[in-house]
Amino acid sequence: MLNAARQLGVDLGSVCGGVGLCGRCQITPVFGDFPKHQISSSEAALTKATATEGEYEARKGLTIGRRLGCMADICGDVVVDVPATSQVHRQVIRKELELVDLVVDPVSTLHYVQMEAATLETTIGTTRRLAQALRDQWAMEHITVDPRALRDLQAAGDTCTVVIRDGVVAAVWPGFHETTYGVAIDVGSTTIAGYLLDLTTGEQLSSGGLMNPQIRFGEDLMSRVSYVMMNEGGDRLLTDLVQGALNDLVGDLAKQAGIERTEILEITLVGNPIMHHLFLGLDPRPLGEAPFKLTTDESITVPASSVGIKAHPNAAAYVLPCIAGHVGADTAGVILSDQPHTRSPIALLVDVGTNAEIVLGNQDRLLAASSPTGPAFEGAQISAGQRAAPGAIERVRIDRATLEPRFKVIGNDAWSTENPDLDPTGICGSGIIEAIAELFLAGVISEDGVVLDRPSDRVVPDGRTFSYVLADGITITQNDVRAIQLAKAALYAGIRLLMDKLDIDVIDEIRLAGAFGSHINVMYAMILGLIPDCDLTKVNSAGNAAGAGAVMALLNRDARREIETVVRRIEKIETATEPAFQAHFVDAMAFPHKTAAYPHLSQKIELPQRAAPAAQGRRRRRPSQEEST
Amino acid sequence: MLNAARQLGVDLGSVCGGVGLCGRCQITPVFGDFPKHQISSSEAALTKATATEGEYEARKGLTIGRRLGCMADICGDVVVDVPATSQVHRQVIRKELELVDLVVDPVSTLHYVQMEAATLETTIGTTRRLAQALRDQWAMEHITVDPRALRDLQAAGDTCTVVIRDGVVAAVWPGFHETTYGVAIDVGSTTIAGYLLDLTTGEQLSSGGLMNPQIRFGEDLMSRVSYVMMNEGGDRLLTDLVQGALNDLVGDLAKQAGIERTEILEITLVGNPIMHHLFLGLDPRPLGEAPFKLTTDESITVPASSVGIKAHPNAAAYVLPCIAGHVGADTAGVILSDQPHTRSPIALLVDVGTNAEIVLGNQDRLLAASSPTGPAFEGAQISAGQRAAPGAIERVRIDRATLEPRFKVIGNDAWSTENPDLDPTGICGSGIIEAIAELFLAGVISEDGVVLDRPSDRVVPDGRTFSYVLADGITITQNDVRAIQLAKAALYAGIRLLMDKLDIDVIDEIRLAGAFGSHINVMYAMILGLIPDCDLTKVNSAGNAAGAGAVMALLNRDARREIETVVRRIEKIETATEPAFQAHFVDAMAFPHKTAAYPHLSQKIELPQRAAPAAQGRRRRRPSQEEST
Repeated sequence: MLNAARQLGVDLGSVCGGVGLCGRCQITPVFGDFPKHQISSSEAALTKATATEGEYEARKGLTIGRRLGCMADICGDVVVDVPATSQVHRQVIRKELELVDLVVDPVSTLHYVQMEAATLETTIGTTRRLAQALRDQWAMEHITVDPRALRDLQAAGDTCTVVIRDGVVAAVWPGFHETTYGVAIDVGSTTIAGYLLDLTTGEQLSSGGLMNPQIRFGEDLMSRVSYVMMNEGGDRLLTDLVQGALNDLVGDLAKQAGIERTEILEITLVGNPIMHHLFLGLDPRPLGEAPFKLTTDESITVPASSVGIKAHPNAAAYVLPCIAGHVGADTAGVILSDQPHTRSPIALLVDVGTNAEIVLGNQDRLLAASSPTGPAFEGAQISAGQRAAPGAIERVRIDRATLEPRFKVIGNDAWSTENPDLDPTGICGSGIIEAIAELFLAGVISEDGVVLDRPSDRVVPDGRTFSYVLADGITITQNDVRAIQLAKAALYAGIRLLMDKLDIDVIDEIRLAGAFGSHINVMYAMILGLIPDCDLTKVNSAGNAAGAGAVMALLNRDARREIETVVRRIEKIETATEPAFQAHFVDAMAFPHKTAAYPHLSQKIELPQRAAPAAQGRRRRRPSQEEST
Repeated sequence: MLNAARQLGVDLGSVCGGVGLCGRCQITPVFGDFPKHQISSSEAALTKATATEGEYEARKGLTIGRRLGCMADICGDVVVDVPATSQVHRQVIRKELELVDLVVDPVSTLHYVQMEAATLETTIGTTRRLAQALRDQWAMEHITVDPRALRDLQAAGDTCTVVIRDGVVAAVWPGFHETTYGVAIDVGSTTIAGYLLDLTTGEQLSSGGLMNPQIRFGEDLMSRVSYVMMNEGGDRLLTDLVQGALNDLVGDLAKQAGIERTEILEITLVGNPIMHHLFLGLDPRPLGEAPFKLTTDESITVPASSVGIKAHPNAAAYVLPCIAGHVGADTAGVILSDQPHTRSPIALLVDVGTNAEIVLGNQDRLLAASSPTGPAFEGAQISAGQRAAPGAIERVRIDRATLEPRFKVIGNDAWSTENPDLDPTGICGSGIIEAIAELFLAGVISEDGVVLDRPSDRVVPDGRTFSYVLADGITITQNDVRAIQLAKAALYAGIRLLMDKLDIDVIDEIRLAGAFGSHINVMYAMILGLIPDCDLTKVNSAGNAAGAGAVMALLNRDARREIETVVRRIEKIETATEPAFQAHFVDAMAFPHKTAAYPHLSQKIELPQRAAPAAQGRRRRRPSQEEST
């Protein structure tokens, strides 16, 4: 049956090559009449179950009615069902990572072979005996052996299972070896997330994350580059830290999955350009100053040990390509998992960090840019700002009449009004967005971003400006609002620049990637005008779309070629040198925007009326206490 | 002029690509009339010398009359001489290593490039800017960059010199970098020899050797394999020792040549199968027992660090292919340098060690085998035997009448008769050959290898047999003669087996490789019948022919393809399973041989008359002293 499937091009799996060991070629014969096809399928059409199948059943179990395709001989017309789990290129559906319809077809594949025993007359070496067995038993031509696999080949003996990657034997195990594993890693500046998968089934066996230990050299990327600029050998230190974390993560994932780390053969990695350079041991400084030179915008394959990861001695790490100086391999991962280049709706992908990485387009054209938002969205440059961590305010509501706030902190589901003992440690990016948007909706902040003097204990003078007291010690200051205005204007202007290039005014869907994208309430983001107008049901968090892209590149070899090709096709726009960027930036300072309309948003919520331009400048400030004394 | 040369296919070198830095494109214009070609060449045919040429002249000197081809523009018909040193693929003649007519065309080449500077608008990474520069300035397509070279690429800046190996940038230096270096190494069981060469000129800058530190685990190969068999982790220890020696040797060679070891980009290695396995970190045990499994009979390229050598971080080590379980990469090196596969005379190449590696044939067919000679030729299994080292007897003459000996020791040119204070430490392989051959010629040893009772103080009873006292404490015993008989019979039988396969009775030339081959007096080898009859003027030591082969593979990329192809074509003969081998072995026990004729030898020297077979067995022994008491 396995031979028939091969001859007919039916997608039926096998690792053991047809000796009844692996169980990958299971099929279900279907008996009965099939008049349409003029076939009558009976039990006599297949030979009886063999002793080998009995042994397999005892060892691993076999669903009733199933047969091993390599053991069942065909004696007559028969109808056979190939279950999904027996298909080599089967599709997996992965909810956590939002991967749908992914075909499992990794770069490395397992093959069980039986070499002809060496005799005194054998005039060829073991490598060529192996190549011959692969030719005879697997119809694979011109296979060579990686020198690093020779030692294992020696130890394995004549009956062994080999891993073949790009026509080269990368690993050898004695006897029959069932599976290999891979790890996909998204290296963020704050957190590093990893996923361990079975490369033969595509099943995810464990996932986990840890903090990027570089964080002690600064929360945002630029402070890490600054550290390298100021400290001799600083890049080596940061590289060692992130590589150590990668290795720890892989160890954790293996432990969780109950496997040895030496069984891991493939690694894929994504990350922003600075993380990309640092985990590869490259100098990140060229990325920190104009012209923001990217060392390479091509994919890279290195030994896993080169990125500090202890795994199989011949494990390879594939790093997705960066796109431009500030648009990294993480964005390439987002594109790969979100697939804007294969669809007709105009999609906007935004990954907010120290820079916002922006991708806009569809199957016809895809544009990418980065906007210098600065780290305000990450809570930096905000008076009470902090990273999104337990204790940080992440949700804010303000009573339109009393101006009294309520809030939630990360790690606690109750609103502050129900839990007066909440002691917030600060406010994170999504919290500051909600706070300013609510203050805007409540009339405390004007469309131009001025904190107005309102008759409330919550509004207090602060030098020549006013602040809003959100909680004990946590205040939204005029400077905070300005920082968010600058950041959001930069983000919007970058997006608008790409819309100009595409000559469009409407975006069909928006995906917000990264941690910020997961936490932010998209409506508030729109109220403040971070993003252009869009049907709110079409604005979603992409979750860890970058990690999902890394998983795709792990499970499917074509996904690697796909993203390499797409990245080459992307039109890279440099915001710094585009005159239109500055104009868009100025217009985008207002909430939600000076000129752009938000029809979809207006259907949902009543935005404060824009004051007549003439009113501007005539608004009177209440003198601050310092000034009046 | 350089452009014209390129267009016309004239072999004119350039590393800097035509900016007047490297001086590789020097030419000599020849002025005058060339009526045959209807050309009149005058000084006006070339532009005047440029300032750049003046700078080059001041910096590096320029022979009078020479011009830099890249600076001289052609204004009219001109005749030009391209000196040998300006030819890319120039031929070198190497006396020490007996390399003739070798074309310098190494696997890695140097190219000076000037990349377009990155700007804010640059949308491609440095790797692709480099690829573009190589396309524009060197017409090289599809060049990629090895990830290990990225860090240097970052540091080098936009004007740099790259090393390209197999279409991949392996190294980058800032600005103009003139040359790279390579080391060829012959890893013998006793000594390790190395040669450091300039890869652009083919010039040998240093050579040297050191003892293989494994020697403390036994002089012969089998004792090293035994050590591994008996000691857990023994292979790792032996690998560490030999790799440490390789690294030391490379350090010595670099120091001698006055270069940094990090400037070494290419390494080539040869060695017998056991050394091959050990320096590659492979388990040698399969080579120590039937069926003598060779892990690979293909060439291997690994990072130099994989064989323990610290050099350029991206240095590669190319290991020539082994031929069979007992016929190693050293023999492949001998074949490469001796080229029997390109010539019509039937050549015999013999490398004597613990096993004799034998190659026989010509351009039509090439056969290889190994014969189990054992280590007697290396001085082992000989009562007073020792390795060829200072103090060892290497030359012996015996007076036909008095049976008095004279001898020479290694490290001293005088005969013992002129220097009675000589205190030999033992006798080495070539010494024992000469001693037995002289004793045979003097009638002390019979054609069947019996030490005869002769009336001389030098012949003394030794148990039931007799010994010959060569010097104080150095005696040639009956057992010694038997050991040499066994060894030489094995060698001869192996050779004869290959002659049978080729169906020939006459060998046109014999080359004796390795240390034994260099020291042995070929006439004595023929008197004892180690080798078949041959015109004595056609029997030569091959010197370090294995090392010469390694040098060829270092300097010329085609030499690598050549030996890989030839090795595949060689017919491997296993002596152990050939019934004829045993018969040849028995016949070859006599001196020089029971049946084979030595017409060439008989022209030179009178061999003792063969005793009638009936005389055998009737020869009377004198009772030993022990027996008589």
